[in-house]
Amino acid sequence: MSEPVGVALLGCGTVGSGVARLLLGHGDRLEQRSGRRLELRRVAVRDLAKPRAVAVPPALLSTDISAAINDPSVHIVVELIGGTDLARRVVLDALAAGKHVVTANKALLAAHGPEVFEAARNAERTVCFEAAVAGGVPIIRALGESLAANQVTAIQAILNGTSNYILTAMADGGKSYTDALAEAQRLGYAEADPTLDVDGSDAAHKLAVLAQIAFGVTAKPHEIERQGIDRIDVTDIRFATELGYTIKLLAEAWVSPVRNAEAATPRSAVALHVAPVMVRKTDMLAQVRGAYNAIQIVGDVVGETLYQGPGAGMMPTASSVVADLIDLAVGRAQKTFAAAKLWSNRDRGFTVEPSEKVRSRFYLRLAVRDMPGVLADVCRVLADEGISISSVIQHEAVEGHPEQSVPLVIMTHYAETGRFRSAVRTIDRLPTVAAPAVSYPVDD
Amino acid sequence: MSEPVGVALLGCGTVGSGVARLLLGHGDRLEQRSGRRLELRRVAVRDLAKPRAVAVPPALLSTDISAAINDPSVHIVVELIGGTDLARRVVLDALAAGKHVVTANKALLAAHGPEVFEAARNAERTVCFEAAVAGGVPIIRALGESLAANQVTAIQAILNGTSNYILTAMADGGKSYTDALAEAQRLGYAEADPTLDVDGSDAAHKLAVLAQIAFGVTAKPHEIERQGIDRIDVTDIRFATELGYTIKLLAEAWVSPVRNAEAATPRSAVALHVAPVMVRKTDMLAQVRGAYNAIQIVGDVVGETLYQGPGAGMMPTASSVVADLIDLAVGRAQKTFAAAKLWSNRDRGFTVEPSEKVRSRFYLRLAVRDMPGVLADVCRVLADEGISISSVIQHEAVEGHPEQSVPLVIMTHYAETGRFRSAVRTIDRLPTVAAPAVSYPVDD
Repeated sequence: MSEPVGVALLGCGTVGSGVARLLLGHGDRLEQRSGRRLELRRVAVRDLAKPRAVAVPPALLSTDISAAINDPSVHIVVELIGGTDLARRVVLDALAAGKHVVTANKALLAAHGPEVFEAARNAERTVCFEAAVAGGVPIIRALGESLAANQVTAIQAILNGTSNYILTAMADGGKSYTDALAEAQRLGYAEADPTLDVDGSDAAHKLAVLAQIAFGVTAKPHEIERQGIDRIDVTDIRFATELGYTIKLLAEAWVSPVRNAEAATPRSAVALHVAPVMVRKTDMLAQVRGAYNAIQIVGDVVGETLYQGPGAGMMPTASSVVADLIDLAVGRAQKTFAAAKLWSNRDRGFTVEPSEKVRSRFYLRLAVRDMPGVLADVCRVLADEGISISSVIQHEAVEGHPEQSVPLVIMTHYAETGRFRSAVRTIDRLPTVAAPAVSYPVDD
Repeated sequence: MSEPVGVALLGCGTVGSGVARLLLGHGDRLEQRSGRRLELRRVAVRDLAKPRAVAVPPALLSTDISAAINDPSVHIVVELIGGTDLARRVVLDALAAGKHVVTANKALLAAHGPEVFEAARNAERTVCFEAAVAGGVPIIRALGESLAANQVTAIQAILNGTSNYILTAMADGGKSYTDALAEAQRLGYAEADPTLDVDGSDAAHKLAVLAQIAFGVTAKPHEIERQGIDRIDVTDIRFATELGYTIKLLAEAWVSPVRNAEAATPRSAVALHVAPVMVRKTDMLAQVRGAYNAIQIVGDVVGETLYQGPGAGMMPTASSVVADLIDLAVGRAQKTFAAAKLWSNRDRGFTVEPSEKVRSRFYLRLAVRDMPGVLADVCRVLADEGISISSVIQHEAVEGHPEQSVPLVIMTHYAETGRFRSAVRTIDRLPTVAAPAVSYPVDD
């Protein structure tokens, strides 16, 4: 049996407490899996007095991050501080001090991946981040190792448990967005300020990490178009049900060859976006309920594979953090890190392109005045952009209220995203249309 | 860039052709992922003249297995011969010759795991087998590496694509078992002799492999109870639908603590079985269609995770074989092999126990004579074993045919498997029961 591995925990909130619980309570099991003892030697926190979900021996606790990082008996630093400023500094410090780093921080990787990974390569140390995407679902290993024989051609993923919880509560319980959000907050599935979860930013950060592994692209934040769930109305959920669909917030990556004869090497475009998508009820992704995450990956060799599990929470995320600690103790993580060359300058032939060219079906809901010619006008605009209509739903208006607008729902056939958006802009200017159009891609 | 890795392929049937296709056609990609070139240097086949799905350079082809194994330029031997006799010999020979081995052979591992793995440890070589279970689904890595912080407490898996294809065709298309099997054979989803697929043996072999990783138990073939799909009647499929369920052939592992005060160390029992199980229509496993495989794993830290993908076929299985080749080239597989100590004598506190003690709900279908007192008799037998009834379906008999038997379907509450089976034996002897009872566990 080799020497024990010393671990320092930076941050002991929800996930940190789970990691501490495993290291303190399951030492024998982890030693059996690692071949070495994983010893918790430092826990740095902001507030010593704060109550925690785990009894950390007082001798380990301190507010001194630097002492934890520079302790010579510490070999691995686990960054669970979150955010991008302090986290970036301590991760760079830890690498400079010769420590391996395990992090669950997708925002850090999305914002500073190249800098952090270059620092790690310079220091000949390893950065692991299984917990950064999809909590307890081992998607980082699946994508980077298990599917290594493949070129990924598409990713469709439910990566934000809060949004999925809210959408499930709206679809199953008939709740409004506001009520569903309040319920999610009461049950701990949503933060007091849920903005980053419900506006698609959190999912976009995670998609940026997956896109780096799958395509070698470093997507800038603005290159990932995002539309959150905060504008979804119960009306849309009902129409989706009527049409045989469920609305899911999906993070998606689509590959298409770039038709550019002048490019020196063959290149492919990756379109990345986060959006509420209408998914057929019979599709596996439509079945993913509550705070679960799921990732569907299409590889050019294997075809379609799917990974599902708890996307957040104390113990699921701790499961992934500790898997990284075991991989470092076994020596596997170092091999992976060296081979994968993530966030390096290696060109794998992919560029991030706007999703204008992605072909999709679309759901379009309009609030229109109940008068002759409305449908004709709308159909004309779509036809002018070469978009044909697959189905229309317009229910009877409430009798005697001709001034009220009525919902008109149109499902299109496949169309280029850019042309569809252009049509929507024109439709929004029609005098017979009472409110801005609501539209979502349809996954078929 | 390091030295190339020499690969010998033993067997060039469906999967072998897929592996050859990747090695010959995607050399640059695999080199990028491995950091080393993966070179196909030998292909040993039984019949040189047989047409193949890949153009193997004639210089590589030979019928001489021994020459392939002993070629000093070969570092990894890929065993795709199948079966347990010749495969066992060539794998032991390859290890003795100092080669790493990649195999897709679950029957070999289930029958000779301890011998093969001991030989590998003695030779200081590595055996990889991602393709042995669930084809393109990376379940071996998920279980052994990604979930390493967990003790697995339950596995429920669709591991036989042929059976799942047949069950899907019966449920969706209303086909009889015979017609569905014929269709599966016509489309290449079932062998000419489908026995090992439809009687549960193939799934049992795969479950034995998963149980070794998850619990460290070496299950003897007879310790895995199996019931195939070959006796499932369309009637059962229809009743399942009426009750809100789908019938799936599941390989299952259940852990329960053994209440034995005399045992020196705390032990747990693992019950392993393969059986058609009634799965609720809303459950993820119920949505798995056609030749897909899916594995649901419950870990004591992460909770429930699910992995799904194509369970067989040329390219999906080749994807897993080549992932193993990459792992060996990167040096990751060797670390995993050394740490996991599979099929060694290491006791992890689990013993395989018969599933008599597993508590489950049950579906029971009887063919009874349409006469007074039948239901009373059946209910009395169940009550005598302490089994209570959750629901009963008995449709009206055909008028004027009192001599005909009618189906009686009973869903029980939770009961011990052993007591349920004892009740069924008694029920089968009732004079009012016309044919042997059909029963399946219900997953709730």
